[in-house]
Amino acid sequence: MIYDVITLFPEIINSYCSCSITKRGIEKGIISVNTYNPRDFSIDKHKKVDDTPYGGGSGMVLTCQPIFDCYRSIERKENSEFIMLTPQGEKFSQEIADELSKKDQLIFLCGHYEGFDERIRLGLKPREISIGDFVLTGGELPCLILIDCISRNLKNYLGKDNCASNDSFSEGLEGLLEYPHYTKPREFEGMKVPEVLLNGNHKEIENFRRKESLKRTKAKRPDLLN
Amino acid sequence: MIYDVITLFPEIINSYCSCSITKRGIEKGIISVNTYNPRDFSIDKHKKVDDTPYGGGSGMVLTCQPIFDCYRSIERKENSEFIMLTPQGEKFSQEIADELSKKDQLIFLCGHYEGFDERIRLGLKPREISIGDFVLTGGELPCLILIDCISRNLKNYLGKDNCASNDSFSEGLEGLLEYPHYTKPREFEGMKVPEVLLNGNHKEIENFRRKESLKRTKAKRPDLLN
Repeated sequence: MIYDVITLFPEIINSYCSCSITKRGIEKGIISVNTYNPRDFSIDKHKKVDDTPYGGGSGMVLTCQPIFDCYRSIERKENSEFIMLTPQGEKFSQEIADELSKKDQLIFLCGHYEGFDERIRLGLKPREISIGDFVLTGGELPCLILIDCISRNLKNYLGKDNCASNDSFSEGLEGLLEYPHYTKPREFEGMKVPEVLLNGNHKEIENFRRKESLKRTKAKRPDLLN
Repeated sequence: MIYDVITLFPEIINSYCSCSITKRGIEKGIISVNTYNPRDFSIDKHKKVDDTPYGGGSGMVLTCQPIFDCYRSIERKENSEFIMLTPQGEKFSQEIADELSKKDQLIFLCGHYEGFDERIRLGLKPREISIGDFVLTGGELPCLILIDCISRNLKNYLGKDNCASNDSFSEGLEGLLEYPHYTKPREFEGMKVPEVLLNGNHKEIENFRRKESLKRTKAKRPDLLN
């Protein structure tokens, strides 16, 4: 999977990708992450990438030229998708992650400042994705969220210490929240591990976990039960 | 605002916080970000922080002792909140960000691997927050999302090039999606800036923007209109 990220702050993307599991994914050759800075494509003599909004108002707006030229410099593979991170987009979900993980290339456009000139949307027609109803400084963190979530679906990306299939929202649990986990010791500050998890009866353990998943989902996220 | 982050991957938090606006917020003394690694608190001779789950199953589970001791090493201020990032938590929103930005200290607990020993929840009673219905490798990116979103509410955090009040979901627009922005040039690849934004009539501009916000919200997020 190739991730091409258009961002004014490539250091945010690159510093994250030099950490933890993303780094290992790159080293194993399962993913590659490239950054492209629109500022490098600005034909303005001061390398400007934003300007004041027509009609007035506070904040700066990202201009068309640097982003159009930056986007067009990236070679589009056949099985690819172009995604703009914006609070106005469709809400990111595990289903979208599953769908996107089947692509060969994802090109991300991260916003910053007050927003994009509307003609970037109209001209480049990105798929708009939001990670939630809250305002952030830029699209870089949402982009990293997508990269993390999508990469977890890729073959061999997760090591043996990680397992995607039993996590909340993944298919193994059929959309339920995860059951409670317990590990050593058997008792910690007076709190004991439920007996059923210690008796070695796999059928009972499975029943216990399913019941706990259901109970928890009912209490915390009844909307998921439909 | 003091952010104290409990994480097995402090480099993810620290590298992000050395970039962009977060860095400036720290330099200006508006926020401080401290990381605490449970591994440093493990009394296991190999500094282990996880173990296999009771009852079987794949993945490793974070153990109680390092996290309890790590958490207890952090000095709790009076006006503080302890937050666990987990897909099972209440959904993060702009309202929660606004509420949390009134605190003096936020302590974040980031998960990793298969999850936490349930007794961490039961014993330390964190407020559980999720940023969305998708599975991530750890709580670090969600934690950074919260730090970014919450910090934007703090006085003097945003420079003059940024403005929190007119963004989607913030109060200025009364919960509507943002209107389209346009900046120079007046025409780009045949696409023109709407005339109304160029005529200098502030009343008309305001009407146009409100109408566009409404239209867009109706089309993309009708749920927000209620």
